[in-house]
Order: sequence, then structure tokens, then C-alpha cells
Amino acid sequence: MTLSAGELGEFELIERLLARLGAPSEDVVVGPGDDAAVVRIGGAIALATADLLLEGVHFEIGLSSPSDVGWKALAVNLSDVAAMGGVPRFALVSLGSPAATPASTLEQIYDGLQECARTFGVSIVGGDTVRADRLIVSLALLGEPGEAGIVTRSGARPGDSVYVTGAIGGAAAGFALLRAAADDERASALLARYPRLADAHRRPTPRVREGLVAARAGAHAMIDVSDGLARDVGHICEASRTGVTLQARAVPVADGVAEVAEWAGSDASSLAVGGGDDYELAIAIPAEQLDALSSALGSTPVARIGVIEEGHGMVLDPGDGGFVELSSLGWNHFSGEA
Amino acid sequence: MTLSAGELGEFELIERLLARLGAPSEDVVVGPGDDAAVVRIGGAIALATADLLLEGVHFEIGLSSPSDVGWKALAVNLSDVAAMGGVPRFALVSLGSPAATPASTLEQIYDGLQECARTFGVSIVGGDTVRADRLIVSLALLGEPGEAGIVTRSGARPGDSVYVTGAIGGAAAGFALLRAAADDERASALLARYPRLADAHRRPTPRVREGLVAARAGAHAMIDVSDGLARDVGHICEASRTGVTLQARAVPVADGVAEVAEWAGSDASSLAVGGGDDYELAIAIPAEQLDALSSALGSTPVARIGVIEEGHGMVLDPGDGGFVELSSLGWNHFSGEA
Repeated sequence: MTLSAGELGEFELIERLLARLGAPSEDVVVGPGDDAAVVRIGGAIALATADLLLEGVHFEIGLSSPSDVGWKALAVNLSDVAAMGGVPRFALVSLGSPAATPASTLEQIYDGLQECARTFGVSIVGGDTVRADRLIVSLALLGEPGEAGIVTRSGARPGDSVYVTGAIGGAAAGFALLRAAADDERASALLARYPRLADAHRRPTPRVREGLVAARAGAHAMIDVSDGLARDVGHICEASRTGVTLQARAVPVADGVAEVAEWAGSDASSLAVGGGDDYELAIAIPAEQLDALSSALGSTPVARIGVIEEGHGMVLDPGDGGFVELSSLGWNHFSGEA
Repeated sequence: MTLSAGELGEFELIERLLARLGAPSEDVVVGPGDDAAVVRIGGAIALATADLLLEGVHFEIGLSSPSDVGWKALAVNLSDVAAMGGVPRFALVSLGSPAATPASTLEQIYDGLQECARTFGVSIVGGDTVRADRLIVSLALLGEPGEAGIVTRSGARPGDSVYVTGAIGGAAAGFALLRAAADDERASALLARYPRLADAHRRPTPRVREGLVAARAGAHAMIDVSDGLARDVGHICEASRTGVTLQARAVPVADGVAEVAEWAGSDASSLAVGGGDDYELAIAIPAEQLDALSSALGSTPVARIGVIEEGHGMVLDPGDGGFVELSSLGWNHFSGEA
């Protein structure tokens, strides 16, 4: 009997699908499995990445405005290029929509796309529109390497420090509050008190500048925090064939996440480490490069959250003497389980 | 009151959405509105195009195998690059699927993608998988210009002849038969008698080689036949600010289409000219280049179907003394009307 997509889970499904592909052309510098592909085209090096966002899975109109949806659809792709140390350049937008959707809703999605594109110097150069039973925003993004070249997931070495930009957990906390706020006074009050949590879900800021300066500062490996910090650092370790120890208490948790965790009957570290959708950068870099990294990042906060280890153990040190298996954290699109 | 996407129709909707975009970067050589975008990236010229295919809109599992769906998803993008005289190189695949879909179905979609990729020398370099309520295949394709450079939609000049490769109407006829065959003996018999009609719908052959040689032969303008021959030639005329007269009786109609038209209570020319989904190339080229074009196309049939005119009239000469407005033909994704 054949397993279903949901039974396999996202990551094993992807592995099985990639196994169907043949040997890539020698012009494929980085193939599937990193934040973006890197290819040689017409004598140049280009980065390419794509994401498919669905109403009801990745966003809900009502919780996000159409313009937020447009912004985020491009932002998550910009984040992938940022995580390679690349410069985003051109986007293709495919939009699916029910026939009954007001044209103004779709125009607002485009306004959000364009606002994000303008902010990060990207041109929207084409795409497709089709009839669908719900809103679908499918983006493909092309970029160029920054002057320091490409940073993949696979260059981490034992002894490297693991850094993360900004603060974590805000997007997951904001999304949980937004979904609950209509029926839950406490959630509604938390939303009012911490408006940046809703913003973190609705309008993430891709770390484009930070990815470029981290590459220049000598980052060995990078990834954007989309599946959940622990899971994403795990991806670096898998690709680099290393282990890692993360210090849960060192993870910079966004303002308000502790209160949201309490409301949700969870704890702030779990929400932050497992939550996903933050679009911060996790960076593996030698300890001696830390000063250069910090000063290059300027006003963007950065925190040391762990160290790359020999072997392949991936453990979270909660700071209370116990350990948590990282493989139990992060988001699986198909099973819908945290 | 705001109009809905369906009330506006696909083409006016696209116009409205594009109006939200800002001025493109000077590195955008051809922006939205052609078969593919053309951009300067890292000192090279690249082509980029994307298409979103949905179960129940563009394909139905049952009428097409999963492997057919994969083939076609890539083929329609290859066709867009072919219509620019480009060489397709790299594809990104985003796949949406219900959790209950057997993993083997998705693997077969990938097998079809890979078969098409291998046939045309393309590498699949990345993408995304997400949970959805129906199958979604979203493709982005990168290509390079051929040695003769890019051919757009906008270069047609009065006096150019209009050519079309292959035969037209097979995909629309095949799709109509496939949808009816379960309940209609005559449709079922026609399918058995003309198996290539089903193939034309399920596994179109993008005219990659033909696009390259037509560019070398001096084509002024090209487009792939996806919305319907009349509508697509109309796109060339709009972009080139010309008119056209098409000779309905000169349109090469695929074998069996006449019988299907009779079964459907239509006529072969209407089905061919309005049907869509053929992925042949329509080419505007000076009359003196026709010999070069024909010999370069080799075994691929090519037929002269009309002439580019001054002005902006787009008329179909049915050969019976009357004329048909082209704007009433072709496919609108949103209204669902032919």
C-alpha cells in the first residue's frame, strides 16, 4: 500500500520527489535543498527560488489584509535569497482567485507586492492569473550573488558559533492571537498590547542587508527561520553533516511571546524555537568573526544561541539540566503537526 | 461598487494589476505582457516565465495521468520560452497537494516533469511543497536567448505573413471528448479512432527547436497558441499595433477535429481558431523569409494563415464572404466563456 503525502510528511515527501529527478546539468551550482537554487545562465550566476502561498494554509484574509498577503508572499522569497547572501532582483507572480473575488482585493495584493518590491529594489516582471476556488499567490524570485559570493546551508564546521538575527517567536505568537482574538478576550487584549506580534505574522521583514553583510563577515552557513528555529538550524546541520547544541535561554524571544505562551499553556522558548515563520537569519560563523559580524549588522540585533558540534546530535539545552530532541520541533506542512 | 475578477475578465484584470506596479528597473528588457520576461542579471540576459496549473481548471486527474500533468506543467512553460526564440534551462516546481493524495501520485507528477525536462535539456533546481485542498502545480522556468536573440510579440509589421506550426484544435477537441467519453458513446468512439487528440490535450509538445529556427530565419514576432489561435494572433497585433486578416480555411486543423466539431454541433474552423491549449507557434515574418523558415523547420509542418495589416482591425475571413470579430474568440480563465 502506498503512503499518502500527509503520512510521509513534508521532508520525506520532498526527498522522494527529488529522487525522481535525473542528474542535474553542470550549470547547476546549488540544486534543490537549499534556500535558493544557484545556476549558471548565459555566463552569469543567478539565484532562483519559489514559494506557493495558499489562503487557509499560509494566510487568512480577515487576519491579514490583501496588501499584507502580497507583501508577505514576496518577503518570504526575499528571505530565501537573503539566506544565500544574495541580492534579489526580479519576481514572477502567479495569482489564483475565485471569480467572485473583488478585483480591488487582487489590486491590493499587488499593492502589497509592489510595496515590498520597491522597498527591496525588486522588479515584478511577469506571471499568470487563473481562476481558483481560493486565493493562491505563487512567487518565483531571481537574484544575483552578493560581492562575497553565495553562502549555502552546508558550510558549517564544528566549533562555529550559531547566531540568530532579531527576535524569534513573534510570528507564531501573533498568528495564534489573531486566530483566537474574535472569541477570546485575553487574546484580543494581548494583540492590542503587542501590535508587533500581528505585524510579525502579517508583514515579516526579510533580512536582505543582513544576509549580504553576514556573507562578507565570513559566514560559513546560513538559513532563514521559516520552519522553526530548531528545525532550520537542524537543516544546516544535516547539510553540513554536523551536530549542534542550542541554548534555549539564549534564544532572543520577541516582546510579548512570554505572555502569549502563558496564555497558550506553553512556554516562551518552545513557542520561539518551534514556531516558525520568523524570517530571521540563522548564521553559522567562526567565533573569531563575531565582532566583524556584529558591527556589520549595525542596529540589527544578533544573539549567539549555540555551537556547531562534531557528529550529528541535535539537542536543545533548556538550561534546566534536561535535553530536547530537535526533530520533534518545527512545522510539517502536510501533517499539520507542530 | 467594485467589479469581481470574473466580471472584469482575465485580460482586463491583468491590465489593472500591472497598473499597480512601479516603473521597472532598467535591467528589465521585456516586462510583463509577453510570453516570457527578459532581464539582465549578473551581466547576462535571462528569460523567465511562470504558470500556475490547477486541478479542475487546467487538468483533471482521471482524464490525464499524474505523469501527463507533470509533463504538461513544464511543457506549457517551455512553450513560452520557445515563443521568444529562447533556450529553456532551469525550472522551479511548487506542488500543492491534499494530505490524502498518495505519495505515488506526486512521484508520478515528478516523473512526468522529469521526462519533459530531460527531453528538452532542462534541470529542475528547486521549488516548494505545500498542503492544499486540490492538486496545484506551479512552475517557473528560466532560459537563455538563442543565438539569433529574442523575438517578442511586438515586432510584427504590415505585410508580414502569419504562419502557424503543426495543426490546431486537437487539444480542445481531445479535452471535450475526454470529458464526455464516460457518458457518450460517440465521444468514446472518436477518442478511440483519434488517440492523438487525447495526447494533444495531455502531452503537448512545446516547439522549442521551432522557436529557435524561426528566430534565426528572421521572425518579426512570435507567440505560442495557448489562449486560442485567433486570440493569440490578436495579442501579437495589440503588441505590434497592427491589424491582421486570418484565412479560416488556411488554418491547419488536426486530424479528427472536423468529426469532433460535428459531434459538438460546431464547425472545425471555430474549434481550431477558438480552442486554445495547442502550444503551436504563431509567427509573423516577412514574405521573403518564408522559404528560409520552411526549410529551417524541416519536418515540422507550417502553414500560412494570414497577413499582418495596417490599422487595428482583427478579422477572420471564413471563406464564405462574411467576417468574424476575433475579440469574440479565445479563452477567458475567469469568466470560463469561450
